[in-house]
Amino acid sequence: MGLLPRSAAGVLQRSVGFVTFPSIEIALPSWIGDVCEPGQTFATVEERVDLTLALARSNFEHETGGPFGSAVFDNDGRLIAPGVNMVVPNNFAGAHAEIVAMGIAGQILGNFTFAEHWTEIVASTEPCAMCLGAIPWSGVKRLVCSARDEDASAIGFEEGDKPADWGDKLKTRGIEVLRDVKRDDGARVLVDYVTAGGVIYNGDTA
Amino acid sequence: MGLLPRSAAGVLQRSVGFVTFPSIEIALPSWIGDVCEPGQTFATVEERVDLTLALARSNFEHETGGPFGSAVFDNDGRLIAPGVNMVVPNNFAGAHAEIVAMGIAGQILGNFTFAEHWTEIVASTEPCAMCLGAIPWSGVKRLVCSARDEDASAIGFEEGDKPADWGDKLKTRGIEVLRDVKRDDGARVLVDYVTAGGVIYNGDTA
Repeated sequence: MGLLPRSAAGVLQRSVGFVTFPSIEIALPSWIGDVCEPGQTFATVEERVDLTLALARSNFEHETGGPFGSAVFDNDGRLIAPGVNMVVPNNFAGAHAEIVAMGIAGQILGNFTFAEHWTEIVASTEPCAMCLGAIPWSGVKRLVCSARDEDASAIGFEEGDKPADWGDKLKTRGIEVLRDVKRDDGARVLVDYVTAGGVIYNGDTA
Repeated sequence: MGLLPRSAAGVLQRSVGFVTFPSIEIALPSWIGDVCEPGQTFATVEERVDLTLALARSNFEHETGGPFGSAVFDNDGRLIAPGVNMVVPNNFAGAHAEIVAMGIAGQILGNFTFAEHWTEIVASTEPCAMCLGAIPWSGVKRLVCSARDEDASAIGFEEGDKPADWGDKLKTRGIEVLRDVKRDDGARVLVDYVTAGGVIYNGDTA
């Protein structure tokens, strides 16, 4: 309000109540309902990992994003929200599978943090630096991962500058970490993506 | 596709094409147009920081979120997209100011990465671990910060587990880092938030 210089054009736009900046919408692809549904139970950790691998694979097979899937579950293994990587189609570097799953779970639970419940996030590949940073903000109590960072790096995806002891750091925060669950299957999804002609995109991909 | 068990209720829902998971929408508050507009020029780095501080302050004064602002600019100091923290109102832990600014800039530029342009992101407070991880994914060439992590911690906000040498790590990636620009003013916004009765929210806030 008077602090900042304004162009005449801008004043004109505001004077007619014009919405000048676009919003961001993150909507799951329409095929999601063929793979899972709200409240569906995945009783074992292997079943929950299988779901994220099915999400990752379906996502690139349907050409709706990259080969990464994630999901948030309650303490009975009931699905709260799935997520898939939608970075390229959504023009949004933040639309990684884990961020999407946490965001949709937040819409369902009506809170940005799930700390009042016991919840688990499962990721088809270990979280990149951004998603790792987001995990404590979501209030989840456990992280389960399938493929390792090295499996993502092996096909050219960057994981970012994570603390070397990131698992321990999460544990210090009271977040349990379970790695390498069906890792071979997780790594195979990544390799199959490349074999299918999937594009490797990173932040410096101009 | 047959891989996963399904409940009868779920099959029924899908059979009528019911959309089962909500989407996430991130829309800037309506007051944004009073503070800045697309393409507006902020010629000096101090002016660009001032904009993010005005965004941070306006955000809590309007009760539309936390005391953090950010913006993405081109190499002439023209505003591409602003962002404010909308974690609590949006029920989305990912809705930090930097993520919002990068996401909206992506909608405008039509790409998840801005690497084909020279762009700068400015943050009213140094990025938390999540936003720090996101910065390389967005393709920005420079990060400018006002308040320090310690200024956020001083009022109770967590910044997460960032590498101790995070500035150097960004530089290694070719991203310039400029810290402490009008830091006193940046820190004052945070203190004023608390003085005004602003709530401190973290991931473990049940």
